[in-house]
Amino acid sequence: MSGPLFNKIALIGIGLIGGSIALEARKRRLANKIVAATRKAETADLANKLKLVDHCGTDLAAAVEDADLVIVCTPVGACGAATKAIAPKLKPGCIVSDVGSVKQTVIADMLPHIPKGVHFVPAHPVAGTENSGPEAALLDLFQGRWCILTPLPDSDAAAVDKLETFWKALGSMVNRVAPADHDRILAITSHLPHLIAYTIVGTADDLGGHLNSEVLKYSAGGFRDFTRIAASDPTMWRDIFLNNREAVLEVIQRFQEDLFYLQRAIRWGEGDKLFDLFTRTRDIRRALIHLNQA
Amino acid sequence: MSGPLFNKIALIGIGLIGGSIALEARKRRLANKIVAATRKAETADLANKLKLVDHCGTDLAAAVEDADLVIVCTPVGACGAATKAIAPKLKPGCIVSDVGSVKQTVIADMLPHIPKGVHFVPAHPVAGTENSGPEAALLDLFQGRWCILTPLPDSDAAAVDKLETFWKALGSMVNRVAPADHDRILAITSHLPHLIAYTIVGTADDLGGHLNSEVLKYSAGGFRDFTRIAASDPTMWRDIFLNNREAVLEVIQRFQEDLFYLQRAIRWGEGDKLFDLFTRTRDIRRALIHLNQA
Repeated sequence: MSGPLFNKIALIGIGLIGGSIALEARKRRLANKIVAATRKAETADLANKLKLVDHCGTDLAAAVEDADLVIVCTPVGACGAATKAIAPKLKPGCIVSDVGSVKQTVIADMLPHIPKGVHFVPAHPVAGTENSGPEAALLDLFQGRWCILTPLPDSDAAAVDKLETFWKALGSMVNRVAPADHDRILAITSHLPHLIAYTIVGTADDLGGHLNSEVLKYSAGGFRDFTRIAASDPTMWRDIFLNNREAVLEVIQRFQEDLFYLQRAIRWGEGDKLFDLFTRTRDIRRALIHLNQA
Repeated sequence: MSGPLFNKIALIGIGLIGGSIALEARKRRLANKIVAATRKAETADLANKLKLVDHCGTDLAAAVEDADLVIVCTPVGACGAATKAIAPKLKPGCIVSDVGSVKQTVIADMLPHIPKGVHFVPAHPVAGTENSGPEAALLDLFQGRWCILTPLPDSDAAAVDKLETFWKALGSMVNRVAPADHDRILAITSHLPHLIAYTIVGTADDLGGHLNSEVLKYSAGGFRDFTRIAASDPTMWRDIFLNNREAVLEVIQRFQEDLFYLQRAIRWGEGDKLFDLFTRTRDIRRALIHLNQA
């Protein structure tokens, strides 16, 4: 292959994910030119100050001119509007992708605005930290992590292959999954854990008031992890829950059923039921370490 | 003060906590002699091989002879039996303490066996990892962490002060809390987080089976933290839930109420309710970092 994978990459949104893609793509020489655009001037100024891209502006359409890869990196609730804004200037044959943690609604919002001849390949890099904004951008964020592609039935095969090559070049392992399956899987592995973390930190804070004591003072390992997760960006996560509604509601219900089962076992002193679950989850942890995901 | 704080320390049980106390107390020269006893010969052999103490045997009563500090470090369900076993050989004036994550039931189980003239001062070092056994023992486990003492109304004041001095010498910050308050605080900061982690890992595993897919393969930051917590020792945690029943049931109920509130907000698309909670928890995280607990 002569020359880099892409000529020009345009990132719409330049937060943790967009910024990290920019840093990594530049380091690995995946494009001749990498630009970004974002709504707010202050964010663009910061991105430029941090030298995340060749240039970051606030004109979304202008950024995508001549780009052969465009990645929408906004909160999922804004992906539709962003795509509508850039549509007039998308070059025929370019690939448009995203990084949304939810796929079905993002696809429904973006697809109507994709011009004929432009290749839409939705994606989701399963990576991140609890920080947000351009200042949170990091190298190696995607290294060794999964990127899930959710191509549509009529997605251009070469475009999907090329996007897969791109994410592998960023250090990720890539799999292709149907959008509905993606949303259910992420509901349990990511969305529900975050919702639970948010909930329990709120519950503890309320209980602290009632106990009139510094509950949080005595937080040890378990609770501290929850507080870290519950510090994740409020906008991003509000959008995720609203946009993955059906799958999240389903996993909350399953979780509630399982928690009530344990609550009842505790009330009735059924130690064996507890011990059996705790042993099973210990084995799951070991399997996960073996899968090198921990 | 001339000489070390104690002449002889005896640890009953030599797992993560007992072993770590031994290592730290020796390093900081808090006793002339540190011994341990445990039920199983294999555990004693391993403790001796790891040189955690001067000697580890399987005769609990023999270990406490002449000890001026005895710390029971067994799972909370075994504290009563351990105290009963050592009672005949406890020296008048010695301090008997524990490290249980639950206080009310442990006190109820141990107290009847404490001979007159022996000073019982219950304690709980809020520290640990998900590992267990003598091989898990670490230096610095208690450094910068809280140790909560829950003295009884008639506890000997000098004994309580001396135990406080001991835990401060191990690097901990020490506070005194009533046993019932301790159990409620730990229910929310430690026991419920662990129960939730155990539950969600089980729910995900079941859902993976139903989806006929490798759900866990795509686990990212949030879920991986849960799996680590859910790998904690099954015996220890079964005993904690069974022994802190009332407080744990209360916090589960509060948590369930709060989770249902969010479930309803998601179903009804009430983004503001979600955003408000997520912003509040982000502030809590920042306050916790400020408290230097994160």
